[in-house]
Amino acid sequence: MGRLLEQINRPNDIKNISPEDYRALAREIRQFLVQRVSHTGGHLASNLGVVELTMALHLCCVLPEDKIVWDVGHQCYTHKILTGRKEGFDRLRQFGGMSGFPKRGESDCDVFDTGHSSTSISVALGLAKSRDLQGRQNKVFAVLGDGALSGGMAYEALNNAARLKSNLIIVINDNQMSIARNVGGMSNYLGKIRTSRNYTGLKEEVEQALSRLPRLGDRVAGKIRSVKDLVKRLFIPGMLFEDMGLTYIGPIDGHDIHQMVSAFQSASQMQEAVIVHVCTKKGKGYLPAEKNPSAFHGVSPFHIRDGAARGIQNEITYTDVFRETMLELAREEERIVGISAAMPSGTGLAELAEEYPERFFDVGIAEEHAVTFAAGMAAGGLKPVVALYSTFLQRAYDQMLHDVCIGGLPVVFAIDRAGLVGSDGETHQGIFDLAFMLPMPGLVIMAPKNAWELREMLRYGLELDRPAAIRYPRGAAWQGLEEYRQPIVLGKGEWILRGQDILILAVGNMVQTGLEICRSLQEEGYQISLVNVRFVKPLDEELLEEAAQHHRLVVTLEEGVVTGGFGQQIAAWYEGKGVIVRNGALPERFIEHGSVEELKRKYRLDAQGLTEQIRQWADQAFQSGRDRKRG
Amino acid sequence: MGRLLEQINRPNDIKNISPEDYRALAREIRQFLVQRVSHTGGHLASNLGVVELTMALHLCCVLPEDKIVWDVGHQCYTHKILTGRKEGFDRLRQFGGMSGFPKRGESDCDVFDTGHSSTSISVALGLAKSRDLQGRQNKVFAVLGDGALSGGMAYEALNNAARLKSNLIIVINDNQMSIARNVGGMSNYLGKIRTSRNYTGLKEEVEQALSRLPRLGDRVAGKIRSVKDLVKRLFIPGMLFEDMGLTYIGPIDGHDIHQMVSAFQSASQMQEAVIVHVCTKKGKGYLPAEKNPSAFHGVSPFHIRDGAARGIQNEITYTDVFRETMLELAREEERIVGISAAMPSGTGLAELAEEYPERFFDVGIAEEHAVTFAAGMAAGGLKPVVALYSTFLQRAYDQMLHDVCIGGLPVVFAIDRAGLVGSDGETHQGIFDLAFMLPMPGLVIMAPKNAWELREMLRYGLELDRPAAIRYPRGAAWQGLEEYRQPIVLGKGEWILRGQDILILAVGNMVQTGLEICRSLQEEGYQISLVNVRFVKPLDEELLEEAAQHHRLVVTLEEGVVTGGFGQQIAAWYEGKGVIVRNGALPERFIEHGSVEELKRKYRLDAQGLTEQIRQWADQAFQSGRDRKRG
Repeated sequence: MGRLLEQINRPNDIKNISPEDYRALAREIRQFLVQRVSHTGGHLASNLGVVELTMALHLCCVLPEDKIVWDVGHQCYTHKILTGRKEGFDRLRQFGGMSGFPKRGESDCDVFDTGHSSTSISVALGLAKSRDLQGRQNKVFAVLGDGALSGGMAYEALNNAARLKSNLIIVINDNQMSIARNVGGMSNYLGKIRTSRNYTGLKEEVEQALSRLPRLGDRVAGKIRSVKDLVKRLFIPGMLFEDMGLTYIGPIDGHDIHQMVSAFQSASQMQEAVIVHVCTKKGKGYLPAEKNPSAFHGVSPFHIRDGAARGIQNEITYTDVFRETMLELAREEERIVGISAAMPSGTGLAELAEEYPERFFDVGIAEEHAVTFAAGMAAGGLKPVVALYSTFLQRAYDQMLHDVCIGGLPVVFAIDRAGLVGSDGETHQGIFDLAFMLPMPGLVIMAPKNAWELREMLRYGLELDRPAAIRYPRGAAWQGLEEYRQPIVLGKGEWILRGQDILILAVGNMVQTGLEICRSLQEEGYQISLVNVRFVKPLDEELLEEAAQHHRLVVTLEEGVVTGGFGQQIAAWYEGKGVIVRNGALPERFIEHGSVEELKRKYRLDAQGLTEQIRQWADQAFQSGRDRKRG
Repeated sequence: MGRLLEQINRPNDIKNISPEDYRALAREIRQFLVQRVSHTGGHLASNLGVVELTMALHLCCVLPEDKIVWDVGHQCYTHKILTGRKEGFDRLRQFGGMSGFPKRGESDCDVFDTGHSSTSISVALGLAKSRDLQGRQNKVFAVLGDGALSGGMAYEALNNAARLKSNLIIVINDNQMSIARNVGGMSNYLGKIRTSRNYTGLKEEVEQALSRLPRLGDRVAGKIRSVKDLVKRLFIPGMLFEDMGLTYIGPIDGHDIHQMVSAFQSASQMQEAVIVHVCTKKGKGYLPAEKNPSAFHGVSPFHIRDGAARGIQNEITYTDVFRETMLELAREEERIVGISAAMPSGTGLAELAEEYPERFFDVGIAEEHAVTFAAGMAAGGLKPVVALYSTFLQRAYDQMLHDVCIGGLPVVFAIDRAGLVGSDGETHQGIFDLAFMLPMPGLVIMAPKNAWELREMLRYGLELDRPAAIRYPRGAAWQGLEEYRQPIVLGKGEWILRGQDILILAVGNMVQTGLEICRSLQEEGYQISLVNVRFVKPLDEELLEEAAQHHRLVVTLEEGVVTGGFGQQIAAWYEGKGVIVRNGALPERFIEHGSVEELKRKYRLDAQGLTEQIRQWADQAFQSGRDRKRG
């Protein structure tokens, strides 16, 4: 650790650093970040980009009285360093260690638990109003990327911030990127501002020239509010924001601390909401990340020398399978189109985008528009596939229900990262999707047991001509049970093992776990059956009926919250039919960060934990477990 | 019916009307609308406002090839008239009659089933893309109010429409209103455009003057892209849209058909997305509605003479109770603030706004921002109450889960119109709220049995210091059981009748129905108990445990979708405990329009239907019902 960083141990310590050392401190912070994240993995490029911005904010703030709201929050590492949490980086994002996102529970300098995009202006406006109404004087900052500006919620908040009669500073951290490169009208607009910087010098010259104009005459001049306005419209960037009623300052070099401090100080004098437009470079100061910021958005442990990942990762993921299948199917059927919300690579649509650019749509961080846009395309006769992570689909709940399901439109939802996602923690776990989709009338919900099945389900979903969702987890696509290839039939499950007494109904990746469980319970002499559910909805009532004849205990397995999930649907179906139902699922709580394995162990959703539970349930169900064994 | 209207019987018939008769036809349409809606009730002011706009659109379109997407959709009456559905108005919004919203199932001229706000640009962009990819040539229009523009989704769509390289026409129907007067930066901006219309004449004069400027010199002039641009920025309205990359035409008189037809025709020649800004007057042509457009947004049957409602409506509604209680509590506690999304009157916050303007926030049609803004205020120490209709809360699913519940922030959700809402139909029924809220960790969910209890629950919710939702239905607040006033205690239900054998667990307004059921079943000799659930979450486990000792059949009653609802939670809780659980709830389907009574009868959620079902369930549960009667 560098000598300056050693002096940073509590909030506000940065104020003891002499201004001529700022650059050196920034350098030490970057070294620290690269070094630590190379060990733990984490978000890198975004954090390297905001080192000076964070320092400038901390120089202008007294913490925790002043409030800094980080949009999304994965760029808060320097903030954590400057608020006395250096040590936390040893176990960053590890089970039991420090979170990679702001957490109120972790520090009183973290104002709000964040994770999803475009919320910061709403939160900051709320904090500003609460300050005003309670007669406090603290500063409030919202810091959001230009990517977050593509989310409609940010605009809703700007629209309201325009009415604020007291101070709020909205820092737009403009790096031209979300995870991928930004898109859309707003992004182009910001681009124009950036490149028009050289006009600024001309402003006064032209103003002078215009003010001496004889020919405009009084009549005209009187009606034009002022010549200054005229010039301002051309020369001052940010008129779009000014048109909305917001004061705009910028663009400012986001790696020049003095310039930022001075802008923040001017901004904080105004009795209104002020936008400060700051330009930064993602990955700044670490060459591999500067060159390829997307790849260094969220990284696994890597070698500092060249940025290469430690350990070999050549397993085929479900995302890979989806990627390949989309391409295959798109080649066969022209009407198939793909939609992503700012994550073409993450969701596996980048290759489709390359081969069929006119049939791929990256709408930016705008899940709601993504879904309703897809609904419009479906109404127009196309076959849209919306690829989103489970946690972000939450944003489009109403669009899925109201715009897709009411019309019964054939939109396919490819829901990646369903279930536990691990080290991003509470805000990113994909554990609510089954519960929120199950009540949606007419929606078909599928989950594949292995790589082959995802392929088949995508094909099947596109043929269905009704709303369909396919949910699959993060990570390696299971290659097991590959000989089980019964054709996909609407609402039909697949028998994997036919036994009796105990029936396991496993959803998606839980089939693999179910198989392990069955094997160890069989060894102990239990009679057991295993079904690959395939369709979480509609239920396979015929199978359930048949199963009731030979099984007294039905155990459901799903990687999702228990409340309102698949298991409870099965329990409801069997109600009064003399079958005992037990649910293997996640408890109704937000699940912290940690590896998926650790989390599964903790919540007893791994093979061992479930085997123990099932043994217990079986013993209860059969009064004495022993006498039902046939071993 | 007027002589011109008689000639309108099929789509495109308007093209046979001679241009000099347009004004007369508009008059006939208005008479027809006022006359019909005065009988059936329905949306009036918005429909009177868009008569000429709709005519102009139909004159420019060939239906059903060309596509008109109506945002929200309650303004589609003239569109229905012009597409051959005059007769439908006799039973407008009645059970089995014509819907008040666009329905694909009703006509192939209805492109999309709508109801919620701000979706039209996304849908239209989807239709435009599907047209382009399939090589079709049809026109696509999105028609949305300036109110819908406050929804972030509209902005997300505009942001993407800016990249379209083929035609799409976005008509902004600017009447300065949502249901209430519009608010926010965008609304102010549109206002400025409207009032700057008189500048337009000056444009060329100034342009000329500037072009003769000697003093600007080549150096400067060369760097300014063109003097035209300079002038445009000042004189052409809509630069905000142009800055986003959209072409803007307007403002145009929305009651001048010829002007609109000509604007639509110019717009349809462009290879891009074009905004046509049209100014209309809500309620146009019917004085009572012109004077008070909010009151004539959605109306009950009325007297045409003066607009007075037919029949006396002086029952106290749940909204009234909420309104009064909010005022009372706000007087006691300074930190209480109220938030509405464009419906201050509808949700009962208008009086708070009047008495404490600085503690009331109307954020426009922006439910997502409303909820996260509230979360920010709660994090800042205030006690925010977000008042929304159940169906619109769907829009803020993620904000409720991610921004309020993860942080455990004390935001109170006052959820009005929960359950069936009646004649607005599929898109507006508030039947999913329990199912989508139940899995949210840490959320408290309450439902009052009567007027007194709503009052107490609101008070209680504000003291809770954690996220809390109170859901209550549309219409009269029940005054019954007013002697049952046990204090509200977290997670505790209230015994109304203590019997045995059958236990009814009733949620909110279903307590009233439950009481009726109990009385008639008691008369038949059944032993029966009734509990007012109060807390849908957390469950009253002590009560459930105790009840299991004396009751073999537990019947749950809730006005919500069965899947994932309260009843299934009870079934899950009793699983394996030897109690039979049956759910009285709505089936998993979208519920059509009709009166709440008719819908309850159809879906057997009225006292009679439920009594029959419970009799049957009891007979099954007790093998032979007779032998368990004690009568």
